[in-house]
Amino acid sequence: MTIDIALLRVLTLLPKGLRWLDLDRSHAIPSREAFPTTAGRTLVPFQRMITLTTDFGLTEHYVGAMKGVIYSINPTAHVVDITNAVQSFDVLDGALAVSQAYHYFPKDTVHVVVVDPGVGGPRRPIIATIGQYVFVAPDNGVLSLVYEREERVSVRHITSEHYFHNPVSKTFHGRDIFAPVAAYLSKGVDTAKFGEEITDYVRFLAPKPKATSENTWKGLVLKTDKFGNLITNISPQDIPQIFDGSQKAFKITVGKAEVTKLVSSYAEGAPGELFALLGSTGFLEISANKAAASRVAVADKGSEVLVTIAG
Amino acid sequence: MTIDIALLRVLTLLPKGLRWLDLDRSHAIPSREAFPTTAGRTLVPFQRMITLTTDFGLTEHYVGAMKGVIYSINPTAHVVDITNAVQSFDVLDGALAVSQAYHYFPKDTVHVVVVDPGVGGPRRPIIATIGQYVFVAPDNGVLSLVYEREERVSVRHITSEHYFHNPVSKTFHGRDIFAPVAAYLSKGVDTAKFGEEITDYVRFLAPKPKATSENTWKGLVLKTDKFGNLITNISPQDIPQIFDGSQKAFKITVGKAEVTKLVSSYAEGAPGELFALLGSTGFLEISANKAAASRVAVADKGSEVLVTIAG
Amino acid sequence: MTIDIALLRVLTLLPKGLRWLDLDRSHAIPSREAFPTTAGRTLVPFQRMITLTTDFGLTEHYVGAMKGVIYSINPTAHVVDITNAVQSFDVLDGALAVSQAYHYFPKDTVHVVVVDPGVGGPRRPIIATIGQYVFVAPDNGVLSLVYEREERVSVRHITSEHYFHNPVSKTFHGRDIFAPVAAYLSKGVDTAKFGEEITDYVRFLAPKPKATSENTWKGLVLKTDKFGNLITNISPQDIPQIFDGSQKAFKITVGKAEVTKLVSSYAEGAPGELFALLGSTGFLEISANKAAASRVAVADKGSEVLVTIAG
Repeated sequence: MTIDIALLRVLTLLPKGLRWLDLDRSHAIPSREAFPTTAGRTLVPFQRMITLTTDFGLTEHYVGAMKGVIYSINPTAHVVDITNAVQSFDVLDGALAVSQAYHYFPKDTVHVVVVDPGVGGPRRPIIATIGQYVFVAPDNGVLSLVYEREERVSVRHITSEHYFHNPVSKTFHGRDIFAPVAAYLSKGVDTAKFGEEITDYVRFLAPKPKATSENTWKGLVLKTDKFGNLITNISPQDIPQIFDGSQKAFKITVGKAEVTKLVSSYAEGAPGELFALLGSTGFLEISANKAAASRVAVADKGSEVLVTIAG
Repeated sequence: MTIDIALLRVLTLLPKGLRWLDLDRSHAIPSREAFPTTAGRTLVPFQRMITLTTDFGLTEHYVGAMKGVIYSINPTAHVVDITNAVQSFDVLDGALAVSQAYHYFPKDTVHVVVVDPGVGGPRRPIIATIGQYVFVAPDNGVLSLVYEREERVSVRHITSEHYFHNPVSKTFHGRDIFAPVAAYLSKGVDTAKFGEEITDYVRFLAPKPKATSENTWKGLVLKTDKFGNLITNISPQDIPQIFDGSQKAFKITVGKAEVTKLVSSYAEGAPGELFALLGSTGFLEISANKAAASRVAVADKGSEVLVTIAG
Repeated sequence: MTIDIALLRVLTLLPKGLRWLDLDRSHAIPSREAFPTTAGRTLVPFQRMITLTTDFGLTEHYVGAMKGVIYSINPTAHVVDITNAVQSFDVLDGALAVSQAYHYFPKDTVHVVVVDPGVGGPRRPIIATIGQYVFVAPDNGVLSLVYEREERVSVRHITSEHYFHNPVSKTFHGRDIFAPVAAYLSKGVDTAKFGEEITDYVRFLAPKPKATSENTWKGLVLKTDKFGNLITNISPQDIPQIFDGSQKAFKITVGKAEVTKLVSSYAEGAPGELFALLGSTGFLEISANKAAASRVAVADKGSEVLVTIAG
């Protein structure tokens, strides 16, 4: 009660031109808790952080143009790159990148994911509320690995053209649709304003390893990272006996290499030696200590990974 | 009237150390409108956003040093990268990058453009007010494509050394001149403070395609982007009959390829097939669906582009 | 006195939910001076800027995950990349990058430096207060070149696990230890809270050039930058007579090249010609005008640099 009166007094004191927004809606405060409330009432619309995961690269103006569009709509937006160097046209690579990073951000963050080889075609632009986050992306499956991790999913087909940057090109919806929609979302515009809910959104299953006999599995390299680590699609659920240490005798064949050692950190390997470890991504990696495993093994994204355990 | 009195009361209440700046000059508010005014009076100096377009790359400390200088002068600056991977020494490539992105940013943004092979030599550092934006750059033509797009241009030779980071090196004016000048501009220092107006600033004409006969044109590839799209210097004004659809029979020769199809989005092409389209840059692109046209055509930046239409 | 009363009045007026933090602790204000004080008292905990220098690269989610962790702890953090493209596993390269940029940032900045091939092994995570800055890094020598430049050094072994992102992986302490510790430091948590002071922290000496006779020296190329400049480990203290102009006759041999000319800016060289100059890093560079000296000289990081002066 006292609080409300005090609030009223301060509000009265402030000249009309001064908005509470300027005091409190710091561009970087992305979650509801961060806002001052009084008697359970939120004083200001909350502001969501924006992240970008795209294949637009760093050598052209593409990402810069997207950011310009965002800041023109919301000058106090807080935009953070997850990565803009997803492999060109590679929806699975984009799906992997965002699925590995989105959940570290404050809740309510707007994750913009644009790997969009179908731009200008029939694929729909969507807003997906998934768990505690909001995603803006083309409906081409690029959110599949996020859908997989979360229970609550609600997807809308973005159709409200007045939130677009007009005229909308047929080749750069990152700039003309996804960036402005994210900017309006960051300002607190409700997802329902952008279009109707849909249930037939596209999701694909990430390639999973297969048991090819009782003691053998066939997986693949999902990606080679900057260090040359070969990140496979094999996780502890697939072959638990290797990861829990109950099965110490195993052989992993990838490229020209045979790996028979499991370690828990890169530094445990002898320099140049290949080994397996459970990586920070939650997947089995074939790695080397201070060396690129991809070069040592002569393997890369898409390479087959064969696992055999002693019978 | 009431407003002004209220304002006065709040100002009186605030302790000396508290500046209105801290309330309102959010680092990310770049345009005058965003500021609270009362009775037509701006309460606070406005803050301009800063963008960077440079060839300093991402592998060294160069861009980091520039940002450090900016934040040391203006701790609340808002700095956004357009791209720092302009091709080394390539003034035209930098001119293209900034000309494609600057106008998406909020007005009054300070665009820092540093592709500066002549650093330390006689070329002048300049501040150019062009349309609604302010540019800080070496006077080597890197703003030429921006000058081309705007009507109002006013250029000043930066000579006021007290805005520099001293001592000024002869090899890194990005850090020692352009970054600090941009920082002061972002704080609202007037452009007139930095030096005298000049009219003999350097501008070059971007290479234009030429009609070589009534039905043939010769252009070139301005750049290959991250996707392998070959961005040419041919725009709809040059050969309107191709873009407006009145001339459906044409042949474009580039590298080892002949292209005879015009589409409006990448997804319309058959996988691996080369086609022409009007890209988001406003130029004719030779592209492929989910493939790098540059590899398919065996062409790159500088490659000749020949266009022939049926007579 | 009057000031304090005015302050009190404003504070009284504010509703409980409104913190002074929201008014003043702009995420981008990193230094104590920037904060309003009255009668020598700091009203709010100060906020330190955060920079990142890592070898995590730009093609994966690694840096994005670190930033997500930071913003989840401090939604108003201000995070700036120095570079995330340090050469993989290369502690000296990381040491060079951060030592060239840290001192341009506002004092109290938290510099996170993660080049960490020993992650998960016995090497300690440390907080180092060096001069006016705070560093968070693995204790593997990556701060050696910063230690070299500053007098006041105080190092702590980070052991307080409640500041970590749990569970802590054995392969990605950038995300699980260094990022969250930096986030808490940026919020003003005292360095003493993170662990005990240590004095046996790791520091290495950067490779120095050696005099091999009265008139000859042997150094090496520390790194090739994005422009192809060969940055050597030779500084003016090592061979002053070359840099002060007293010795004009000299020969520098690197790769297949012999260099006999010293210039003060890149533009002074004839196109394609190799020359020596004192670079912005403070080291001798072998460079070319608008060309990559590394290609002209056929030399790269680690190449031997022989300097001979006339006797």
